[in-house]
Amino acid sequence: MSESHITETLDYIENHQEDFIARLRKAVAIPSVSGDPTRRQDVFRMAEFLVEELKALGASVETRDPGVQDFHGTELKLPPIVLATVGNDPAKKTILVYGHYDVQPALIEDGWATDPFELVEDEKNRLVGRGSSDDKGPVLGWINVVETHKKLGHELPVNLKFCLEGMEESGSEGLDAIIYSEADKYFKDVDAVCISDNYWLGTTKPCLTYGLRGVSYYHVAISGPARDLHSGVFGGTVHEPMTDLFAVMSKLVAPNGRILVPGIYEQVRPITTAEEETYDNLAFELQELHDAVGNQINIHDDVRRTLQHRWRHPSLSIHGVEGAFYSPGDKTVVPARVVGKFSIRTVPDMEPKKVTELVLKYVKEEFEKLGSKNTLNVHCTHDGNHWLASPDHPSYVAAAKAVERVFNVKPDLTREGGSIPVTLSFQDALKKNVLLLPMGRGDDGAHSINEKLDRSNYISGIKLMNTYLYEVSKVEL
Amino acid sequence: MSESHITETLDYIENHQEDFIARLRKAVAIPSVSGDPTRRQDVFRMAEFLVEELKALGASVETRDPGVQDFHGTELKLPPIVLATVGNDPAKKTILVYGHYDVQPALIEDGWATDPFELVEDEKNRLVGRGSSDDKGPVLGWINVVETHKKLGHELPVNLKFCLEGMEESGSEGLDAIIYSEADKYFKDVDAVCISDNYWLGTTKPCLTYGLRGVSYYHVAISGPARDLHSGVFGGTVHEPMTDLFAVMSKLVAPNGRILVPGIYEQVRPITTAEEETYDNLAFELQELHDAVGNQINIHDDVRRTLQHRWRHPSLSIHGVEGAFYSPGDKTVVPARVVGKFSIRTVPDMEPKKVTELVLKYVKEEFEKLGSKNTLNVHCTHDGNHWLASPDHPSYVAAAKAVERVFNVKPDLTREGGSIPVTLSFQDALKKNVLLLPMGRGDDGAHSINEKLDRSNYISGIKLMNTYLYEVSKVEL
Repeated sequence: MSESHITETLDYIENHQEDFIARLRKAVAIPSVSGDPTRRQDVFRMAEFLVEELKALGASVETRDPGVQDFHGTELKLPPIVLATVGNDPAKKTILVYGHYDVQPALIEDGWATDPFELVEDEKNRLVGRGSSDDKGPVLGWINVVETHKKLGHELPVNLKFCLEGMEESGSEGLDAIIYSEADKYFKDVDAVCISDNYWLGTTKPCLTYGLRGVSYYHVAISGPARDLHSGVFGGTVHEPMTDLFAVMSKLVAPNGRILVPGIYEQVRPITTAEEETYDNLAFELQELHDAVGNQINIHDDVRRTLQHRWRHPSLSIHGVEGAFYSPGDKTVVPARVVGKFSIRTVPDMEPKKVTELVLKYVKEEFEKLGSKNTLNVHCTHDGNHWLASPDHPSYVAAAKAVERVFNVKPDLTREGGSIPVTLSFQDALKKNVLLLPMGRGDDGAHSINEKLDRSNYISGIKLMNTYLYEVSKVEL
Repeated sequence: MSESHITETLDYIENHQEDFIARLRKAVAIPSVSGDPTRRQDVFRMAEFLVEELKALGASVETRDPGVQDFHGTELKLPPIVLATVGNDPAKKTILVYGHYDVQPALIEDGWATDPFELVEDEKNRLVGRGSSDDKGPVLGWINVVETHKKLGHELPVNLKFCLEGMEESGSEGLDAIIYSEADKYFKDVDAVCISDNYWLGTTKPCLTYGLRGVSYYHVAISGPARDLHSGVFGGTVHEPMTDLFAVMSKLVAPNGRILVPGIYEQVRPITTAEEETYDNLAFELQELHDAVGNQINIHDDVRRTLQHRWRHPSLSIHGVEGAFYSPGDKTVVPARVVGKFSIRTVPDMEPKKVTELVLKYVKEEFEKLGSKNTLNVHCTHDGNHWLASPDHPSYVAAAKAVERVFNVKPDLTREGGSIPVTLSFQDALKKNVLLLPMGRGDDGAHSINEKLDRSNYISGIKLMNTYLYEVSKVEL
């Protein structure tokens, strides 16, 4: 039965592309920009659209109200978390899928070739529109799978739960509290989590993503005079906070990217032969890095080390200085108090607490060496842990099989350099495996102008989600 | 004759304090803020006030129109340069005095105890009001000297020329062109220049100022990616401009203020015993530095070295970074192009051109050492030369005698750490000695709230200007 259902559903998806694209067009037409308070009603409208779509397909739908947001002193109602369930068979596994229905801002004046909120298919069969790839395409992908089964009169092979939020592009405000409070309620029976909110490594080959780096963010505040000084009157006679800041922060990282804080690399998990092999034949070229950054400024001359340094080695970036002169032109100010900002991307087995201990100790020691009479205050402003799943977990094995069936290729096993905090929240709150199963390509331009989702990625992505549910229904979780 | 005139004029000044304060009150009441375009008509009104006062005293007055100013895209008419002449006797020396009739912005909301544009005398006999000390008091000082002579029916001992501008607090726009174009016209017969637009070193003792540091300003631009990057995705894989900037700029100056650019100190004129002696018994305490900066962050533990490092040694200050993250909070950006800004205060015998050669060479060498694939562009955005007059020049000797007569003390011989560009302009254009003869005290708060000029400084300052004209009339210039 299951095998014939797979074939039937895949055929249905192949033959109903225009229906699915029409649904995506409707979704893109709602400018649900969570970062723009004047668009907040559109975010709510988008939630309503999804609720109606899900209800029409027979899902049981609930919403949770995350409360209000403080937007620069104004209270804004937060859009609802949409929770939906399709199927409630205790004999079946329960898969939770997460997505978000808000989008990044977009204005045609930013340089879009077409109205960002009107989905158009271009000559290369790319579906262009804000949210097409991030994350309305993937969210509708799951809904299309439900529709496919309903139209064919088949039950889903699993119980499917949805968790859809409308504030992902604005810090997922209110989401974590609801994930934790629903962990043993709405999410009680969840066996595995699947998130489709990232991208293929490149443009040609699907991937499963099993790791993310964490981030620890630091402020190095140095204060001296009670007020900004004139460099003519005081230059040469007092300790200047900017001099000290540059001295201390130049000791953090070498120009080749090596972190200079002692003890950091001792915490990094050594690479095994098995892990090393996952870097063989990845669908990625250095040219893609050059294209992405717009210059040939790669530190490492091969793909393997480049991706290892993106995914599984820590990095340290200096972001800026608060309190100093930052405008164009010249100003001869000696800033009274400056705050240097940097962050460390963390990887297994670094512990955020230990990292911060090392950083604080080192920065204080380096400042002491200066013999300055200024005052140092260094602290960690936030940290988020890294995340690493096993690509051998049955949910990943099921997803890999689904990829092979749909794409006729083994998926790349990838990690990412950035963070997707909800991944860690689901893992920590539900204690279940989380799989990142991307739909779009690395060049979709999720936060840029002319965001797109290739028609083939959308349709094959629906097929992949569909097939994954069959494969995961068969394994032991 | 001359001696009796001095005595008569000094008595007159002593006995007409209230008249002079009334004149200052009228001037302060005109809010001639050159930096505020909505106040521009008040700057013109202030020029008109001075023209009328000078004419009423028999001066021959002309104005020069410096044209228009581009204020963020709006054309603003520049206030006139007021040129006035009292006396035209070829047998007398001609002294040119410079001052400015515009003021810094001031709002009672900034924290003023009283309306900044209403001159009030407080319980400590301080005349409080915007422009009282900077620079309306000194400008009116000269006018009061003219009035004193007119009322007594005496001629001035010298021909007196005025050059009064209304844009000093906003970059003296248009002034230099007029100084140079009038050098062999209106200013043709000038024998010496006297500027009263600075301050006593401290609060107790008058001074003559004979030196100013120059300033050379540099931009260190480092660019890498074509656009800002996400530190999660790219951290560890590309050369980051901020890393390079901190590495290079940390090599500019040591925490103890020592400039690390090779070759700079070789250009600094060695201190002679005679110069060293001018630092004996200066009316200055380290406490005054602590009060000024609001903290005990002095590099040098004695007054002598502190003042030498303010006046006659170079210094290097890092002012800020353009293009990086500068707001409060956290942002994980890797800035694509950053511009570090620093300046060097220059002293005799440093040559700006040579300084820039050394700086560019050194910064380029330090950047090369990094092995970065990013691109460096370092250049000097502007330089203004240092200025040094001889305190043995007859105009200084005359001024010192005047100080002794009025204050019964030898003046401190001081220099300043900052620049007063008009000093150099007059010296270069007219090839005449320039004397800086301050009226106010070091704590007048020229650019701060509650700007004041002590009654005693105003009245004694008028006496000093008056006496200086007699003394300078007697010497060979």
